[in-house]
Amino acid sequence: MATITVPQVIPSPTEDADALMKAFQGWGTDEQAVISILAYRDAEQRKQIRLAYQEKYDESLLQRLQSELTGDFQTAMCHWVLDPVERQAAMANAATKCIHEEYPVIVEIACANSPTELLKVKQAYHALYKCSLEEDVAASAPAGNLRSLLLALVSTYRYDGEEVDGGLARSEAELIHEAVKNGENGTTDDGELIRILGTRSKAQLGATFSCFRDEHGTTLTKALRRGSDPTGYTRALRTTVRCVWDANNYFVKVLRNAMHESAGTDEDSLTRVVVTHAEKDLRDIKDVFRKTTSVALEQAIAKETSGDYKTFIVALVGSQ
Amino acid sequence: MATITVPQVIPSPTEDADALMKAFQGWGTDEQAVISILAYRDAEQRKQIRLAYQEKYDESLLQRLQSELTGDFQTAMCHWVLDPVERQAAMANAATKCIHEEYPVIVEIACANSPTELLKVKQAYHALYKCSLEEDVAASAPAGNLRSLLLALVSTYRYDGEEVDGGLARSEAELIHEAVKNGENGTTDDGELIRILGTRSKAQLGATFSCFRDEHGTTLTKALRRGSDPTGYTRALRTTVRCVWDANNYFVKVLRNAMHESAGTDEDSLTRVVVTHAEKDLRDIKDVFRKTTSVALEQAIAKETSGDYKTFIVALVGSQ
Repeated sequence: MATITVPQVIPSPTEDADALMKAFQGWGTDEQAVISILAYRDAEQRKQIRLAYQEKYDESLLQRLQSELTGDFQTAMCHWVLDPVERQAAMANAATKCIHEEYPVIVEIACANSPTELLKVKQAYHALYKCSLEEDVAASAPAGNLRSLLLALVSTYRYDGEEVDGGLARSEAELIHEAVKNGENGTTDDGELIRILGTRSKAQLGATFSCFRDEHGTTLTKALRRGSDPTGYTRALRTTVRCVWDANNYFVKVLRNAMHESAGTDEDSLTRVVVTHAEKDLRDIKDVFRKTTSVALEQAIAKETSGDYKTFIVALVGSQ
Repeated sequence: MATITVPQVIPSPTEDADALMKAFQGWGTDEQAVISILAYRDAEQRKQIRLAYQEKYDESLLQRLQSELTGDFQTAMCHWVLDPVERQAAMANAATKCIHEEYPVIVEIACANSPTELLKVKQAYHALYKCSLEEDVAASAPAGNLRSLLLALVSTYRYDGEEVDGGLARSEAELIHEAVKNGENGTTDDGELIRILGTRSKAQLGATFSCFRDEHGTTLTKALRRGSDPTGYTRALRTTVRCVWDANNYFVKVLRNAMHESAGTDEDSLTRVVVTHAEKDLRDIKDVFRKTTSVALEQAIAKETSGDYKTFIVALVGSQ
């Protein structure tokens, strides 16, 4: 479920566009006014506001926001006003330009979305960038396991049903166990592991991961070797397994890491999770966050952030 | 353009269903009557006949055809009455069960279809087989270049635009040249070659193949090594390059090979090309066939086939 709230009676898109223009004009920008409008409109309403603003003022609302706002608040708001599918395509495109740091963005888009949602992101990618997401992911890293894994994840059109083949889960849990063991010995060809993660349905993979845990007494993410990981492949594997197995738990982990006190706040990850999920399933993620940490997500965020960025993100997260 | 002809005035689906039942009853099947109905109905009309037949006689038209007809005629007619997208899904499923012989079916479905058509086949595959085409292709062969190539081809959602990057075409033509040279030396990791064939748009690949020919004085298909090819990988590579570069030329080659006198007629390949393309683009393939061989396709087929199979296939190919 979503966390954003939309007033029962909302102004027309043109009235909202006028109010935004008023907030931009005069001495400094009235950030509070911008938040009070855009944080409380859903994707379709924001689209209508963008169109009304372009029509009336003959300029792009997105570009005006980019010039009026600064810092993390600007990043968050400019992502927020985009169409959700185009926003993910833009995030994926940015991630392909520094894949060794940003691979989680690719894994999330490939694995936390349903197969149909991923397909829509890939269609938007074609329209925006005149090439495929597959091409850009394939060109984002040298040949190797990291590239093979990410390319397999974005390419595949997974089956989305709930059917599970128990025998297959057991045999592929063993194949994965072999691959992990070979990895510890420095063997690097993970063709079978990547094939399984890259083609099986999420329900089937969940069963396979459960078999692995039952058979070997440890979860696959724990079994994946720590230590030297120069390409980031093993981290990307762990990210994939977590994201496929339980996306809500995975996003709670991302949020907790983003607000980890000793490392300083990672606003980019915080923004990504909140903006991407606020009108989709952030309420479910919030529930898991509270159960895991005994703190409400909005309180944790309020403690770690400040200024207009804080006001905006907390508005998206909601207080319920 | 299509080659099948549909009468200007056609009976209702129930009248056609009745006429089919009449052809099935009595001493032996009236194959000519079956052909005179079904060969002259388009996909939507055949679907309505299937529904009307099921409704009125409480049995599957497809199963009845399977029990009434025999041999190559049965195979061709049973493929023909299917929905075109489901037919391709069924052909792909059958091909995954003997991939070393049937890989051309997978390559054709992945590369001769548009990205949107391939997607529809994959959606039908989910519905029919409760798993993805990717999974079944990945499980169809042991790990290796053949599997990697076929999996990449069926997975990717290619960009379908006409834009071409000339610099990229030149640099990737060189990468392909390196891969082909290494292949001659027995090096077997074709990651870069498979990445290029598996992700780039058809327009971009066409430009890359042209660069290869201009730079090295031979086409890529000729440069791909002959000789020992135990897994069929090199043959699958050649099939892919031909199918991507010029699908009409490729299908003419398949038809010519299928009717090669010394080897006997390959009815499976002949059926596949005619049935799959008769209501799509078989007229274009026929034009290329006549230019290449100076013989009309329908004459070549009539010479090589006989009986009801001949009558049916020639009806689908048309006489114009």
